[in-house]
Formats: sequence, C-alpha cells, structure tokens
Amino acid sequence: MQRPLILVTNDDGSAAPGIRALVEVAKELGDVIVVAPDSPQSGKGHAITIDDPIRFHAIDIFGEIEAYECSGTPVDCVKIAKHVVLKDRKPDLCVSGINHGSNAAINIIYSGTLSAAMEASLEGIPSIGFSLLDYSFSADFEPAKPYIKHLMSYILENGLEHGSLLNVNIPALPYEDIKGLKVCRQADARWVEEFQEALDPRGQKYYWLTGKFVNEDEGDDTDVWALDNNYISVVPSMHDLTNYKALDTLKEVEAVTIES
Amino acid sequence: MQRPLILVTNDDGSAAPGIRALVEVAKELGDVIVVAPDSPQSGKGHAITIDDPIRFHAIDIFGEIEAYECSGTPVDCVKIAKHVVLKDRKPDLCVSGINHGSNAAINIIYSGTLSAAMEASLEGIPSIGFSLLDYSFSADFEPAKPYIKHLMSYILENGLEHGSLLNVNIPALPYEDIKGLKVCRQADARWVEEFQEALDPRGQKYYWLTGKFVNEDEGDDTDVWALDNNYISVVPSMHDLTNYKALDTLKEVEAVTIES
Repeated sequence: MQRPLILVTNDDGSAAPGIRALVEVAKELGDVIVVAPDSPQSGKGHAITIDDPIRFHAIDIFGEIEAYECSGTPVDCVKIAKHVVLKDRKPDLCVSGINHGSNAAINIIYSGTLSAAMEASLEGIPSIGFSLLDYSFSADFEPAKPYIKHLMSYILENGLEHGSLLNVNIPALPYEDIKGLKVCRQADARWVEEFQEALDPRGQKYYWLTGKFVNEDEGDDTDVWALDNNYISVVPSMHDLTNYKALDTLKEVEAVTIES
Repeated sequence: MQRPLILVTNDDGSAAPGIRALVEVAKELGDVIVVAPDSPQSGKGHAITIDDPIRFHAIDIFGEIEAYECSGTPVDCVKIAKHVVLKDRKPDLCVSGINHGSNAAINIIYSGTLSAAMEASLEGIPSIGFSLLDYSFSADFEPAKPYIKHLMSYILENGLEHGSLLNVNIPALPYEDIKGLKVCRQADARWVEEFQEALDPRGQKYYWLTGKFVNEDEGDDTDVWALDNNYISVVPSMHDLTNYKALDTLKEVEAVTIES
C-alpha cells in the first residue's frame, strides 16, 4: 500500500520546535514534505503576497525529509507547495503548526497557522491546524503527540468534507492531566486591546499592539470551555463566512427604488 | 439630533480614488473620520502587526475631514482608530473601501478591505465593505454612490446583529444598467492559480503569484450570480468559522482511548 503524502507547514517559521514535533508525528504516518516560512509569520491571517516576488529554497534541517523555506506568508507557503513543489502530487493531508500559542476562538482569523490550513482546505486537501497553549520556544510538545497522531490517522482514514478544516488547540498540561478530545464550536471570545505608546530615538511616536483575551461566551460547547476544562478542542471550521441567519431579515434592503 | 460618527478605511491606501468616493457619500450622512493605510495593502487578509511598531500621522487630503494615515494593515488601522484616535468616541458605522476590484465569494478571506470591516464588527461597530468590479485607478464610482448611500442609511437606522458585517460588491456598469440590490450568500468559487517563474539580475529564481477566478457554484442565490446578472451583491457575513453541520459526524473522534 502506498504511504499517504502529508504536507507540513506553520507560521512560526521553519526553525520553530513546534513544526519539528509535527514532522516527527507525520513521518510515522506517511511521506512528508515541509514548506514553511523563512521567518516568523504570526498574526499574518490569510495574507498573500501580491506586490512582491516570492522566493524559496530547499533546506536540510529535517534530516531525510524533503523540506523548503519560503519568503512569503503561511498561505503563500501552501500555494507554493501546491503549484511549484508538488505540482501533480496531491497531498492526502495538510497539517499546520504546532503553533506556539492558542488559536482558539477568534484567534482563528488572525492566525497564519490556521490560514495555511484553510488555504489547503480550499484546494480540496483535508487539513488540520494544531496549536499548543504555550508561547515559549521551550514548550513541551510530547504530551500532545499521541492525540495529534490519532487525529491525523482519523482524517487520513475518514477524510473531511470539501472545504473543511479542523482547528485543534491543546492545553499545556502533562499527559496524565489531558482529559481527551472535545469536538466543539468556536467561542465568541475577543481581544480587549490597547496600544503602548513610546518615542523612538529621534523623538517620533510609535505604537505597539498589546491586549488581553476575554471570553464572554458562557456556553459549555465551545473551544475555550474545553481548554479551560483540560480537554483538547477540535473545531470543524470552514471558509464560508455567510451569516445565513441574517439573510431573511436583511432582504427588505432590496425593496427600495433609488433615484440617481 | 447628533449626526452619526462614521469611520472610513480601506486597503488600497489613503490616496486611492475609491476611499475619496466613499468619504463623499459618508459626509452626507454623518461626521467622518478616516484612518487608512499609508501604502497599498491588497491581499493582506486579517493580518495584524505584532512584531513591529505602528506609526500614524494626520493627513489633510480629505479637505475638512479629520484623517490619518497608518503604517500598518487595514485591520491595524481599525485598531488604531478605536484605541488611539477615537478612544471614547464609538463610531455608529464603519465603512471600508471602495475597493478597486471584486471581493465577492472567497475573496472575502484574502481582502484587507473586508478584514477591516470584520475587525470593526468584532468591536461591535456595524460595518460594511464596499468593492467595485474595476481594478483601475480611473474607475467610475458615480453609479454606485446612490446605492452606497442607501445601504449606509439603512444600517445607521436599523443596525446590524453584533459581530455581523455586509460584504457589498458593485458591478462596473453605468447607473441605468444596475438592476438593484440582491441579498445573497457567498458563492463557493475559488482561484485557480499558478506562479510565474523568472530570474532576477543575479540569476536567482523568483515567483509571482497569478491566477484566474473560477465559479463552480451553480446556485442563483450567490454573490457571483448577482454580479453576473448586473445586481449589486449584499452578503451578510460574520467571523464564526465553525462548520456546524460537521459537528455531529465528527463527534466519533472523541470516543477513543489513547495510550501514551
């Protein structure tokens, strides 16, 4: 039997420990190809590079694994992987991460990790974005590995609806404290932000974004609830942003004659 | 009666004709504040600037209108507007655009214009992203203005569900050929892409993204259908990416005991 082809990417860059952990799991399940950004790309959302050229080259930091570093965003990496690196070879699965830090709730729309997974899903490749709730480079990815392997095996076997992806967040806990997997919806949580103001050496003002994550969603069926209760959250996600519930009420806006 | 406060932004940059057209409509309806990127930011999606400082300064290219130019992405512009420029003044409406080019269908997730509108919606500000299907800087925004005014008035009067925004796309047609407004869903269309390969003066390869928009969604209730049939498309949109239909079938993934 042919081994499945697994495309691995991330947004923390090719040198981040998180992607190394993901490659270690992926190579137990299939043939792996890595196309990752050559610099940290956190918070890049679904950005693509339109007005600049993109460059990429082979790297050998993953041992025997075929791997490339790309100058673009995480979404660019997936596009370069599909159109330039893989061409006629279609991956059976794309995994992105393991991100250093949470991508639960609203973080999915800011996250390069999840945007890369979404881009793969748009190309009909089942995909999963993995994140560990520990921002540090010394984060311990070991407790998460059996769960990551289980989810990758499950999707390789069962597939995912066209255009779907999974947003998987993992609490930063010892293995014995993780209660298991919880399939859930995206919490309606948000960032309460401010900007730190400072002066540069020439006396000009500049601003740094800073903020605090706040969950006002009291549901016990959300990813934030699952994580707070020591579960790994699994949110089936998609790219259709239509607010279907609003379609009917909004219809009245059509029924107006406008004079030029 | 106090005039409403309208925040205007875009992704083509403060000097683009599209934002000037939008400001002209907005100032008929309320007090206007502009916070726009200082450079073109097309394709930036929901990117935010985390690892660099952000700068902004007042500009006077909109006559009497209070206006600022910001070094960040469109989403950064909305955050700077809220936290640094407006502070306690909460806008009654945020409008983004008028984008030079379509943001129908899947373009919503790549679009800086729509991401700025979505960021405002996350802050509880009703918001609308406007796009004209003409990429040129000499595009004619006049035929669209009465419709844009109508939609802005409607939302100022009726509000929008918390977390919702409108994605409005306008065909590039003379006024008399526009059939009206159509409330619809996001078409399941996509980009078929490739990369142009070339050599730089030092003999190094580089790649430019290029692509063709393809609609395989045959529904007559989509934004692409509306635009193809000379309507202005109005898609109520939101930030919840949960694929609710997939929640139940995926539940079985939870029911596995994993050995460490």
